[in-house]
Amino acid sequence: MIQVQGLSRRFVVPGGEVWAVRDGRLLDEQGHYERLERSLHEIRMENPTTRRALAHAIRETVRRNRVRDGLVYLQITRGVAPRDHAFPPHARASTVITARSIDAKAAALRAQNGVRVITSPDIRWARCDIKTTGLLANVLAKQSAREAGAYEAWFYDEAQNITEGASTNAWIVTSAGVLVTRDTQANILRGVTRAALVQIAKAMQMRVEQRAFSIDEAKQAREAFISSASGGAVPVVAIDGVTIGSGKRGPIVTRLQQAYLSRA
Amino acid sequence: MIQVQGLSRRFVVPGGEVWAVRDGRLLDEQGHYERLERSLHEIRMENPTTRRALAHAIRETVRRNRVRDGLVYLQITRGVAPRDHAFPPHARASTVITARSIDAKAAALRAQNGVRVITSPDIRWARCDIKTTGLLANVLAKQSAREAGAYEAWFYDEAQNITEGASTNAWIVTSAGVLVTRDTQANILRGVTRAALVQIAKAMQMRVEQRAFSIDEAKQAREAFISSASGGAVPVVAIDGVTIGSGKRGPIVTRLQQAYLSRA
Repeated sequence: MIQVQGLSRRFVVPGGEVWAVRDGRLLDEQGHYERLERSLHEIRMENPTTRRALAHAIRETVRRNRVRDGLVYLQITRGVAPRDHAFPPHARASTVITARSIDAKAAALRAQNGVRVITSPDIRWARCDIKTTGLLANVLAKQSAREAGAYEAWFYDEAQNITEGASTNAWIVTSAGVLVTRDTQANILRGVTRAALVQIAKAMQMRVEQRAFSIDEAKQAREAFISSASGGAVPVVAIDGVTIGSGKRGPIVTRLQQAYLSRA
Repeated sequence: MIQVQGLSRRFVVPGGEVWAVRDGRLLDEQGHYERLERSLHEIRMENPTTRRALAHAIRETVRRNRVRDGLVYLQITRGVAPRDHAFPPHARASTVITARSIDAKAAALRAQNGVRVITSPDIRWARCDIKTTGLLANVLAKQSAREAGAYEAWFYDEAQNITEGASTNAWIVTSAGVLVTRDTQANILRGVTRAALVQIAKAMQMRVEQRAFSIDEAKQAREAFISSASGGAVPVVAIDGVTIGSGKRGPIVTRLQQAYLSRA
């Protein structure tokens, strides 16, 4: 289908944010507002709305789409203007919110049985701390994972250290029982669920190290898992076809899942 | 303005392409089709249309928008689907074409008087050879240039070598009269106008080297210029405030401009 359009077009590199909906309620709501505000600041966009107005619009979107378990996506663009690279001087920012249900049964099965991941070179830009819609590298990696029979792709940097997944943060549990996830000085998204799990683990007296870990260290881990707003903590049972630990959900990720759910 | 939307949304990491319109005619038409087809191939999108159908739609867009001197932009997305990172299995690709006029007088003044550029670290992803709408790094660099009173930002890599401009390719002329522009093995867009200028320069018996050149080498160049579909060859008269050559349009870029225009 070819559409013949007018002189202006939407400016398509918006900042974005996501909220998980569980049992009709938003998870970690404030943490996602904070990250949204930080993303906008970093790309020099003014936030066109208050948290209060956004909260209302998000709830209304969830309600009208009858989402009980699902996701809300929010995008803010600089607005509609003739195409140019520099910021449009007179455009009015537009905010677009969409919501969709997720297959809660399939998500529960993943949380119980775990998923497989592959590794993929991290070819993304140097500002992955900013949540935007510029996700082509993530899309290509995720598609490669799916075609390899895996659920997620873990990116690795030039030093062969894991950075994060295409849409999740990456975690391992060492043979000494230490939880390891990449530090936020690295070029990763500062996962809101990741931060919540760090807090929960520390509150449960688990040892947490935020540092680089290599592909090899990950393959020798006792447990591995991914974290995201949409899925919480999900066990990883194989990396590049190498079985992790027992090949089943391990005890540490199980405890974290329970603690995360009861906190929510 | 907040819009409350339905369950699906457009997949926003499309491949793209641009054509310049001069005196109502498309420049380097086939070269841009070739690059479009390559970009789509590299991101594993099927081309939903033939060159013939595209050529018709592009001309119709130019005609209906009454563009005599301007630009045509084309974007192809994988289509509309519930948000996910993996490719949407059943979406139909959509092609969106927009056209706009440019200020031909302002462009002619830039071509005659030259422009100023600043330098900026290249923080983009590793596949800048693919033309997509994921241009946030380019947008931020271009905006910084404008705020510094410059027209363009030249990216430099970790070795302090210039890669290209935010929306143009970068060129210098050495004291020996050699034209230098970055090789396409580097992480740059393969400019269609850049390739045309390489051909033209060689046909005029100029020496052309496609290789890395440093910020320092650029600042000591006899001439410098940028190339793009929209502007052709445009002199650079200052880099980071350092005057290049005479600070005016040099003889080599002048010859290239004339040859490029007469070829078009």
